[in-house]
Amino acid sequence: MNAGVALASVLEAGGPRLAAGLAQTEERLAVVARAAGDRIGRHAEETLAAGGKRLRPALVFLCAEKTEPDEPLVAAAAAVELLHMATLVHDDVLDAAPLRRGRATVFATGGRQAATATGDLLFSRAFAELAAGDQPDAVRTLSQASSALARGELMQRADAWSSAITRGRYIERCELKTASLFAAACRLGALLGGAGPPEREELASFGRRIGLAFQILDDVLDVSGPAQRTGKHRGTDLLDGTVTLPLIEARERDPGLAELDLCATVTDPDAALGVCERIAATGALDAVREEALTYVGEAKEVLTRARLTSERHAALELVAEAVVARYS
Amino acid sequence: MNAGVALASVLEAGGPRLAAGLAQTEERLAVVARAAGDRIGRHAEETLAAGGKRLRPALVFLCAEKTEPDEPLVAAAAAVELLHMATLVHDDVLDAAPLRRGRATVFATGGRQAATATGDLLFSRAFAELAAGDQPDAVRTLSQASSALARGELMQRADAWSSAITRGRYIERCELKTASLFAAACRLGALLGGAGPPEREELASFGRRIGLAFQILDDVLDVSGPAQRTGKHRGTDLLDGTVTLPLIEARERDPGLAELDLCATVTDPDAALGVCERIAATGALDAVREEALTYVGEAKEVLTRARLTSERHAALELVAEAVVARYS
Repeated sequence: MNAGVALASVLEAGGPRLAAGLAQTEERLAVVARAAGDRIGRHAEETLAAGGKRLRPALVFLCAEKTEPDEPLVAAAAAVELLHMATLVHDDVLDAAPLRRGRATVFATGGRQAATATGDLLFSRAFAELAAGDQPDAVRTLSQASSALARGELMQRADAWSSAITRGRYIERCELKTASLFAAACRLGALLGGAGPPEREELASFGRRIGLAFQILDDVLDVSGPAQRTGKHRGTDLLDGTVTLPLIEARERDPGLAELDLCATVTDPDAALGVCERIAATGALDAVREEALTYVGEAKEVLTRARLTSERHAALELVAEAVVARYS
Repeated sequence: MNAGVALASVLEAGGPRLAAGLAQTEERLAVVARAAGDRIGRHAEETLAAGGKRLRPALVFLCAEKTEPDEPLVAAAAAVELLHMATLVHDDVLDAAPLRRGRATVFATGGRQAATATGDLLFSRAFAELAAGDQPDAVRTLSQASSALARGELMQRADAWSSAITRGRYIERCELKTASLFAAACRLGALLGGAGPPEREELASFGRRIGLAFQILDDVLDVSGPAQRTGKHRGTDLLDGTVTLPLIEARERDPGLAELDLCATVTDPDAALGVCERIAATGALDAVREEALTYVGEAKEVLTRARLTSERHAALELVAEAVVARYS
């Protein structure tokens, strides 16, 4: 099953409620971009129009008990997507990336200053969406997630090129920079969609686990390629000094790799490709994929404990599978 | 009167209440930095420790009717300062600035990625401070201000090098990138400090006007120097393509200046200095200073209409004068 088919099956299982919610979210994102003003909104608009899977908004709607996507849910769905896009725009500035999802980035069309400000604007609008409601808990959930995302980035920078990164430290970074927003999307859906505190915790825990699986599999894909799928060269993480689980696992299997000084060795894309091949040769990629699947399994297990209608249960299971499907 | 003396007189007029509020704000900012974690909090901590005049937190306390700086006021004071610092850290990344206030910037010590993430973290923590309370109006005020700051940055980039920037467009940009946060600080103080809606509007209007004066005078200083005072070369705005009121005013007085193609002419600091001298020769700087003083006068006029104790009135008047004192 490829990613497109997997997401189509989520949409089908989510029924008209999910489809309506996502359509309203798109409208809301378009309004946010237009409200930023004429010339100055152009960058924000291009970013939002570039699309994406809208996985986080889908989690908001699927974690809500309510059957209709009302205003607070649409606002929360827009907020998590705006926050996600803010981080992507800032990432593109840092990577000086010309393209994302096959379209020119804000960095490429507007330059560093416009892209930094566009990220800040998307960030601000995420909070504005939730601030329009009267749910302090929702704002708290978003601010915790956005702090976590930034702390994850800082941790990644602080740990760059280090050979001392443990599995535990890597997982902590994934929790901060990826899982926190998946968990927040689920928590917001549960909170604003009428779920009680225990179900909120369970759904947040579900989101956290699929977020971890998502990030780990993303890190596998960076090593395994193919580049046609990812739109990036293999080994971009290595070039950046970002030590991920495939390398940590491979270092345990290949002592020579453990002694490699990344900073001195991986100085160009060819060298990165060579290290990717060496990681793959250890069999580490399959082991790491298995580890990600364990988180997906735990996520599904959490779902069986939450009080969910069979329709919501089925749709959320399919989201968990869609995360894996990107890589199969 | 120099800036230090002016601020000391604000502190004196604000009495023990203001001093206690500012001391608690410093403690809060230190806690925020430490809470970011060991290694990863270092950048945030350095940024906050670098200090500054804490003008925006002072406005929060001085606009509150309450006599004691309670938790919501301290949170709001910390929030406006965190948001302000987030924008400074991002500015330093864009300018690749090695120093701010005589200390190494986060950009200089941690690099582009750490500085971008530190800005995002400070931004997130600003919202977290306000989200801890149960005042959706306060979160709305901050999110409006932070959106305005980002839109101001985008506008500045969009208008770079343009010879068509009108006075009106320039003032609009100043409102967005500077006055909005001064106004938000006053509005938050009034809102959380027990003022009624009419007084909130008046105090926000006061903040907006001193914010405009602050930015206009800052733009004069960029042209007039001396560099020892600003810590920057004269004409950094020109080098950046940022068209400010001194140039707009001077173009009306010197037709040759009006025809100058900035982008082609101002290619190095010496060329920027030359244009600064030419602007100064038109007498534009005095006219622009007068315009800033008009906003300060209007700000004081607004104060006379607000219902304030004589102590608060006197302290807020001194803040307005402190804004001017930086430049006298």
